[in-house]
Amino acid sequence: MHKIAILGASGYTGAELVRLIAVHPDMSIAALAANSKAGQSMANVFPHLRHLDLPDLVTIDQIDFSDIDLCFCALPHATSQEVIAGLPKTLKIVDLSADFRLRDPAAYQKWYGNPHAALECQAEAVYGLTEFYREDIRTARLVAGTGCNAATGQYALRPLIAGKLIDLDDIIIDLKTGVSGAGRSLKENLLHAELSEGTHAYGVGGTHRHLAEFDQEFSAIAGRPVKVQFTPHLLPANRGILATVYVKGEADAIHVALASAYADEPFLQVLPFGQVPSTRHVRGSNFCHIGVTGDRIEGRTIVIAALDNLTKGSSGQALQNANLMLGLTETTALLAPPVFP
Amino acid sequence: MHKIAILGASGYTGAELVRLIAVHPDMSIAALAANSKAGQSMANVFPHLRHLDLPDLVTIDQIDFSDIDLCFCALPHATSQEVIAGLPKTLKIVDLSADFRLRDPAAYQKWYGNPHAALECQAEAVYGLTEFYREDIRTARLVAGTGCNAATGQYALRPLIAGKLIDLDDIIIDLKTGVSGAGRSLKENLLHAELSEGTHAYGVGGTHRHLAEFDQEFSAIAGRPVKVQFTPHLLPANRGILATVYVKGEADAIHVALASAYADEPFLQVLPFGQVPSTRHVRGSNFCHIGVTGDRIEGRTIVIAALDNLTKGSSGQALQNANLMLGLTETTALLAPPVFP
Amino acid sequence: MHKIAILGASGYTGAELVRLIAVHPDMSIAALAANSKAGQSMANVFPHLRHLDLPDLVTIDQIDFSDIDLCFCALPHATSQEVIAGLPKTLKIVDLSADFRLRDPAAYQKWYGNPHAALECQAEAVYGLTEFYREDIRTARLVAGTGCNAATGQYALRPLIAGKLIDLDDIIIDLKTGVSGAGRSLKENLLHAELSEGTHAYGVGGTHRHLAEFDQEFSAIAGRPVKVQFTPHLLPANRGILATVYVKGEADAIHVALASAYADEPFLQVLPFGQVPSTRHVRGSNFCHIGVTGDRIEGRTIVIAALDNLTKGSSGQALQNANLMLGLTETTALLAPPVFP
Amino acid sequence: MHKIAILGASGYTGAELVRLIAVHPDMSIAALAANSKAGQSMANVFPHLRHLDLPDLVTIDQIDFSDIDLCFCALPHATSQEVIAGLPKTLKIVDLSADFRLRDPAAYQKWYGNPHAALECQAEAVYGLTEFYREDIRTARLVAGTGCNAATGQYALRPLIAGKLIDLDDIIIDLKTGVSGAGRSLKENLLHAELSEGTHAYGVGGTHRHLAEFDQEFSAIAGRPVKVQFTPHLLPANRGILATVYVKGEADAIHVALASAYADEPFLQVLPFGQVPSTRHVRGSNFCHIGVTGDRIEGRTIVIAALDNLTKGSSGQALQNANLMLGLTETTALLAPPVFP
Repeated sequence: MHKIAILGASGYTGAELVRLIAVHPDMSIAALAANSKAGQSMANVFPHLRHLDLPDLVTIDQIDFSDIDLCFCALPHATSQEVIAGLPKTLKIVDLSADFRLRDPAAYQKWYGNPHAALECQAEAVYGLTEFYREDIRTARLVAGTGCNAATGQYALRPLIAGKLIDLDDIIIDLKTGVSGAGRSLKENLLHAELSEGTHAYGVGGTHRHLAEFDQEFSAIAGRPVKVQFTPHLLPANRGILATVYVKGEADAIHVALASAYADEPFLQVLPFGQVPSTRHVRGSNFCHIGVTGDRIEGRTIVIAALDNLTKGSSGQALQNANLMLGLTETTALLAPPVFP
Repeated sequence: MHKIAILGASGYTGAELVRLIAVHPDMSIAALAANSKAGQSMANVFPHLRHLDLPDLVTIDQIDFSDIDLCFCALPHATSQEVIAGLPKTLKIVDLSADFRLRDPAAYQKWYGNPHAALECQAEAVYGLTEFYREDIRTARLVAGTGCNAATGQYALRPLIAGKLIDLDDIIIDLKTGVSGAGRSLKENLLHAELSEGTHAYGVGGTHRHLAEFDQEFSAIAGRPVKVQFTPHLLPANRGILATVYVKGEADAIHVALASAYADEPFLQVLPFGQVPSTRHVRGSNFCHIGVTGDRIEGRTIVIAALDNLTKGSSGQALQNANLMLGLTETTALLAPPVFP
Repeated sequence: MHKIAILGASGYTGAELVRLIAVHPDMSIAALAANSKAGQSMANVFPHLRHLDLPDLVTIDQIDFSDIDLCFCALPHATSQEVIAGLPKTLKIVDLSADFRLRDPAAYQKWYGNPHAALECQAEAVYGLTEFYREDIRTARLVAGTGCNAATGQYALRPLIAGKLIDLDDIIIDLKTGVSGAGRSLKENLLHAELSEGTHAYGVGGTHRHLAEFDQEFSAIAGRPVKVQFTPHLLPANRGILATVYVKGEADAIHVALASAYADEPFLQVLPFGQVPSTRHVRGSNFCHIGVTGDRIEGRTIVIAALDNLTKGSSGQALQNANLMLGLTETTALLAPPVFP
Repeated sequence: MHKIAILGASGYTGAELVRLIAVHPDMSIAALAANSKAGQSMANVFPHLRHLDLPDLVTIDQIDFSDIDLCFCALPHATSQEVIAGLPKTLKIVDLSADFRLRDPAAYQKWYGNPHAALECQAEAVYGLTEFYREDIRTARLVAGTGCNAATGQYALRPLIAGKLIDLDDIIIDLKTGVSGAGRSLKENLLHAELSEGTHAYGVGGTHRHLAEFDQEFSAIAGRPVKVQFTPHLLPANRGILATVYVKGEADAIHVALASAYADEPFLQVLPFGQVPSTRHVRGSNFCHIGVTGDRIEGRTIVIAALDNLTKGSSGQALQNANLMLGLTETTALLAPPVFP
């Protein structure tokens, strides 16, 4: 039984980790930290977990990490790097923040506004998109969870870029995301009365930080700079990301490339040609559904990918990576079907 | 590995059964029937289940029941009794319809409007409220799943009636239920545009059929006729039932009685005195949360129970009963925490 | 053209006042105050009002009240009494806070926790339930808007108490309210991710402050103390209150009493016997729908009232009262039908 | 007082017409037809309109059209042309169906699958996008309401095409629409349980019929064939369309062109550069909000338009056109602000 610590357990990704690990046969939760709510029981902070026998929330420095086999770090950006720099250098860590996603410190500073405070850790971190970094993750000490939007877009696009199937200078990702991706923070625009029954775009014009991941990954695959257009929209729903990706390339070849690339992937489901996925059909699960459709205009293709931002987009991905890092079966505790309706 | 058949697999309770059984270590789904959609794949009817290796939908008469260890029957009321009357008399069956809930054929006819067509089966059926009929269920051949509203109200009230803690002539159940309880049927009032962003009562004045179960069960416990007032309301949510129960009795004693009655029940969680449950904290799970509060008026108590109508209210309960009938651990495949947010 | 000021214009009731007054032929908005957002344009704070030619937000002390004919005060409780105490003593005021609803200063202190800071104003304030205080409102200088829940319950119950048609010692109000009633404040439990897709009770056990209004008004009508039981629940919807009221009395007589009492009221619609109202059928309007149903238990009746908490429950009521205070037709700018779906 | 008939009054656009006309000072509703619900009261079919003094629903042939000044036709596609062909040739008609939107009968047959059954009427019909066909509408006998998606996209794009500001061969409209646009029809995918808490694309690949309008209008403006890419998505919301339009052109020039084109339009609000609209800020109103943003990629611009599909997208537009046809002020009964929250 591997002993697990979760730092940042009072946020949604922390709670999602607990939810998933609760039925994991080979992991037990040994410590839960949340500085602002230290001293409280998890049942108080997340009543849906009240039936579980969990340790109370503590501050991070109250944890004896010598006793921990793997630590999930679900802290806010910038905080995460400071905390991780102070943890034992032998501790296996899966970080869910943005702090270790970018390999280039200059890119980090450009997109996040501050110099990186844990360059040594950043250098060893492995990018956590499991299906594409699986072997590196197996042996990694520190894995950087991807952005939830970044994961969705990459599942739609990586095989197309690798296969030279699309025009690299004309990629548009129009993305719709549920509100839980914004976390449990108190912001006026996240109130029910502000958000329900409507939609709007945000981070328009190429300012969303997940673009940094697209730039890094797509350019690396293509062997030359690739810049995509990316517009996220906020959905009146709690969970789910739908990425509608517009590319120039042949639809049949694109469908074949995706179906072939993911044929053996347990969580990536490529739909029959012409079918479209829905966020409600992956809700609460670690699955990602991908559909490919041609357009009436010759040479245009629409690829649509759907996943749950809290599961496959963050905590489910994190557990999938932790399974690999601990030598466990990759899919353990992650095969529960989506919850519909 | 026990072989399972599900009749009525194209409805929400059918899909919920598949969702739960998909991660059951001792059951495998051998047959799925849905007469109106026979010939289709389950992935077509419920895309959230597309990753599972499931048999295609067939008609009921295409199933070889000699090969089946247990059959879930998630058919509409009235249809269910006809079908079950025709199944092998040795087949273990968990029925999710209303057809076998009432022990008295006259009560059945009064509430459902037609004479019962399978009196012999009705005579042997065991009422499926697991925590109160557990031993009978273990040895039953046919278990009748309870109404989802009826289950919620009973969890709040049975120990209070048994303990003679409340005035039996003044019980009010004001209940709020999510829309999935109405099934996947095409009715104008179930459209998103009709239902979202509002609420209304229905079955007002003592006309809802789940009253028949309250009458039967509460009268049996009390040893004299008990009639409750019961008003259900439709919530703009897919899952969840919240029963706010108004009784005359001492709050402390009521809390003690509930906490004591359910102390060893894995799925029934009595909250600390004064706390209230929420449907969102049981969503997608087999748990039921129960809170007790006193009122400013001496001698009045409010008991509030919350559960997920599709899980603990129907398909989860059905699986819990099936586990017992097959000699398996009762909680198998039912311990996954609620999905929040 | 009457000149109007709105204090607290950055909240939902403030915005609702602007929405309604925007099409009022005899009122023009001369000043909008919101201390925390002073200096901003209303289009910035409430983009749905961007097409209107409105004054920018200012602080309260920047307003020249000599120029104002009537002032709406949509400030938080406690703040309101301080501000109103400092306004010109001749200024007509409609207050939407709780500060002047209770005639007894001791009751105010008991329910709100602090001694009243504007006793003189409190003494002259008229309770703003228009249909029952119409003549006093016409000549009032200061009108105290009712609680939105308090208004809903009173529409269901006042004629029954006045007509001695029900048992005064056994009244239960089970109420469901949309989230906008909680205002635009940043609270974790008002986030979309916390609130949507579920429901829970709050203020259980006789602790909700609107009980003070029920006590005051119902006792005054009955001529003796009346205490009701009142349990509010939060709905996953932005607008709407549904009060399900359980009384002991004859349903037919109760229906006749309500229909008769409200026969000439333009906004209070009593449905045919046995029909039930829905919050979605009053959304965005000043109408209140009331239904009466008997129960299978002799002598029990269920009265259900539905209104929009932001309109008939607060800002619409306030405008209705302002129309009276200014000698205008009471219904002016308030007859727009509900917005459905 | 102009006498109005509404055919198809039991659908959402019919109800929306009644809602708007209810406060129109120069129109009175003389007849309401709905063949399937003839004989019922409007209060029964749409309880939110119960306070209005409306004629009961009748069949179309029960209406004496000699008494009618203007007839709104809110019937299903194909039915509409048959009915209109049989109405008096002098009757002013605003049709809300798709039947008279396309000037080319061959285009109609291609997109709608059947030969047009009222070619003479089609020949005289004026396309109802008010701001661009205003003078023709004033004198028209038959006005064809636009598709709600088609209107949204055209508001974003017409001035850009007319001004030769964008690449005509690379226009992508990614559109999100609320569910009321699909009408009140009983379809499984419109159930609350199927639709809430998620999103998906439909009509993908250039198959949505509103493309026919885009083709017709944009090609006419450009003077050469223009084909756009158009992908609609269904939102878990009742009202609202958000069109995110990706074009190649200079953002500043595009913003100037839109602001200038709509400077005198009462309902079309161009936001300050860089701001984005939200469907919730136009809900229930006849306003359309349009935002323009540049992208990090040189020469790319994102134009986002938001309107309410039932109001500006159909019934509000229809009333605006009817006002013109009857010589009334164009904005009469259409200036009510949006309902938020």
